[in-house]
Amino acid sequence: MSVLTLLTDFGTQDGFIGVMKGVIWEICPTVQISDISHQIQPQNVRQASITLSRVFPYFGDGTVHVAVVDPGVGTRRRAIAAQIGTQFCVAPDNGLLTLSLQRAKDKHLPLKIVSLDNADYWLHDITSTFHGRDIFAPVGAHLAAGVPLEKTGKIINDPILLEFPKAEKTDDGWAAKITLIDHFGNLRTNLLAADIDDKVSIRVLGKDIEKISASYGHHTIGDLVSVIDSGGYLEIAVVNGSAEKRLKAKVGDIVRVINNG
Amino acid sequence: MSVLTLLTDFGTQDGFIGVMKGVIWEICPTVQISDISHQIQPQNVRQASITLSRVFPYFGDGTVHVAVVDPGVGTRRRAIAAQIGTQFCVAPDNGLLTLSLQRAKDKHLPLKIVSLDNADYWLHDITSTFHGRDIFAPVGAHLAAGVPLEKTGKIINDPILLEFPKAEKTDDGWAAKITLIDHFGNLRTNLLAADIDDKVSIRVLGKDIEKISASYGHHTIGDLVSVIDSGGYLEIAVVNGSAEKRLKAKVGDIVRVINNG
Amino acid sequence: MSVLTLLTDFGTQDGFIGVMKGVIWEICPTVQISDISHQIQPQNVRQASITLSRVFPYFGDGTVHVAVVDPGVGTRRRAIAAQIGTQFCVAPDNGLLTLSLQRAKDKHLPLKIVSLDNADYWLHDITSTFHGRDIFAPVGAHLAAGVPLEKTGKIINDPILLEFPKAEKTDDGWAAKITLIDHFGNLRTNLLAADIDDKVSIRVLGKDIEKISASYGHHTIGDLVSVIDSGGYLEIAVVNGSAEKRLKAKVGDIVRVINNG
Repeated sequence: MSVLTLLTDFGTQDGFIGVMKGVIWEICPTVQISDISHQIQPQNVRQASITLSRVFPYFGDGTVHVAVVDPGVGTRRRAIAAQIGTQFCVAPDNGLLTLSLQRAKDKHLPLKIVSLDNADYWLHDITSTFHGRDIFAPVGAHLAAGVPLEKTGKIINDPILLEFPKAEKTDDGWAAKITLIDHFGNLRTNLLAADIDDKVSIRVLGKDIEKISASYGHHTIGDLVSVIDSGGYLEIAVVNGSAEKRLKAKVGDIVRVINNG
Repeated sequence: MSVLTLLTDFGTQDGFIGVMKGVIWEICPTVQISDISHQIQPQNVRQASITLSRVFPYFGDGTVHVAVVDPGVGTRRRAIAAQIGTQFCVAPDNGLLTLSLQRAKDKHLPLKIVSLDNADYWLHDITSTFHGRDIFAPVGAHLAAGVPLEKTGKIINDPILLEFPKAEKTDDGWAAKITLIDHFGNLRTNLLAADIDDKVSIRVLGKDIEKISASYGHHTIGDLVSVIDSGGYLEIAVVNGSAEKRLKAKVGDIVRVINNG
Repeated sequence: MSVLTLLTDFGTQDGFIGVMKGVIWEICPTVQISDISHQIQPQNVRQASITLSRVFPYFGDGTVHVAVVDPGVGTRRRAIAAQIGTQFCVAPDNGLLTLSLQRAKDKHLPLKIVSLDNADYWLHDITSTFHGRDIFAPVGAHLAAGVPLEKTGKIINDPILLEFPKAEKTDDGWAAKITLIDHFGNLRTNLLAADIDDKVSIRVLGKDIEKISASYGHHTIGDLVSVIDSGGYLEIAVVNGSAEKRLKAKVGDIVRVINNG
């Protein structure tokens, strides 16, 4: 029994996701489907790429990730599928897979990418506005059912990649950026905990934080803290509150890490 | 392994949907459940009818659709189930199934409707405020498990039907109406692409659109465009934006299609 | 085939829930997963306890409820699992299970509680900010797969319990409190229908309601009514509207029931 995940900017109001599941179970009746998110900001390919790469390591062999944030739907942009280690991804070729492909490279995972051009694995009628239903869902379902990647299209080596700037080394530490703001208003950055010195303080949007804490619960409600998030990155949070609201923070804002060692 | 869908106005905050799934899997442990939407506007039977009819064709043989938007819960309004072609629907008898029944007629699909009056297929204790859990979910689960429709109630021929006005022919084209506004702020109309002439322009809420485009991506971000939606209807959209916000559009607003042929 | 439910305050935007499902299906590939709610207000353990206890009775033998509202994540607060009758719960030890444990006592259901201290049933790497993924999901999955409760930790008898005040008897009836406001704006109270006299009137936030009605549908749209909710408690509602908005009601507000018998 295999697992397929869905990640889109479609929302959950209109039945777009429900119908994709109908299409998937028609092709692969036993696959378990996990919704990663359907609240990606409309057309925000970058947010989708980060979100996918964060969950990817927690899924098992054979998992198929179908990710559709697709401003170019109906144009000549390619649709692609990739085998990354023992898992699969299906997505428009617009950079959505960038961080998952980069991780494959960093970890020396086997990697193969195809351009989806075999219509045998699509629905019969292809609209120009909903390839999630017509192409990505059925291809994902066929992969989950065991169809080899190479049958779904020709091998390519030039997927579109986006730039994801890394935290920058400064004279006295790091200049990181907020890359994602979560449901709780926690601010996720692009600075890996593994890169940070033992003794540091943090400066973000005019506020100072003394150190990196073990967890939220070691502080008083309302405290502004920094912790290591569940993906291994530096995170700014307010205990039982929203750092986003407190700091009026937005994606792209700078978080400075100052070495005190 | 069968598929059951859920379409309600219950929201996802209170556990109403979770408990319906518990009831369903108690009766039919292997059924796959697809959430169509739980964000139907409270008591908006019309929106539910449109949403259900749009997804219906994409589900496979034996699928059971449980749709509960039910302002009359606890009154003497009937509960019904229908076999439409090879699929099933379970819903209150308030017009929710109108468009799915109409499609059955248009496509000459086999059609059978029963009034749910066999309490053997309900939960033991029936409340007066949550028939979704007490009646519709268990009946749907029994149908998914293979119970014949006729066992769940007596055949009827007079389901309640709502009026869904079609686009009107005008001297120079069509007067369509916005019937649904989706998550992206795209405006869906009641005019089928198949009925539209080759060369047309569009007028909506004081704005003109030159032609019907192949897809969003053939335009510049921010352009107001018209396309054919994934259900085959005329749609008004803003590329990577919201036509709803741009035009301050609402359901019922007129979209004029003018023949230029 | 077993059922596992998820109840959290994680929202559905970031992939937290999706990744928990990935972890669960890695361990127990066939388990059916029902989302109870992920819209619990951040850190509102009380709301989670009420929501869980309301859905609990509708799930079948062997169901595992994984409930994570966890302001103390990463501190020394215990994580616990409980067998309540024929079902299981996994949660932080912060009072979340209070009402489900209390129901077990009231119904004389078999009850066993353990402190989760056997890391064999956790993920290998434990972060300090996401025990939902690292501890609660895998333990829940192992229980769903048939691992005996006692293997996951040592028996304890002192789980943390919260106070949930009951409706108070007054000279002329009851003083109840609003405990939960649902998606429709219906106001749920802490007064059991079984405790109410036959002839009563209601007074809530300056408005009077003549009697308890059989259901919403017996009234005119816009009427303020009181009914018995689907959990057996007194509820205040506006027909096809929101009692929350009409009365500017909030959790904790008083609802008076006056005997007229």
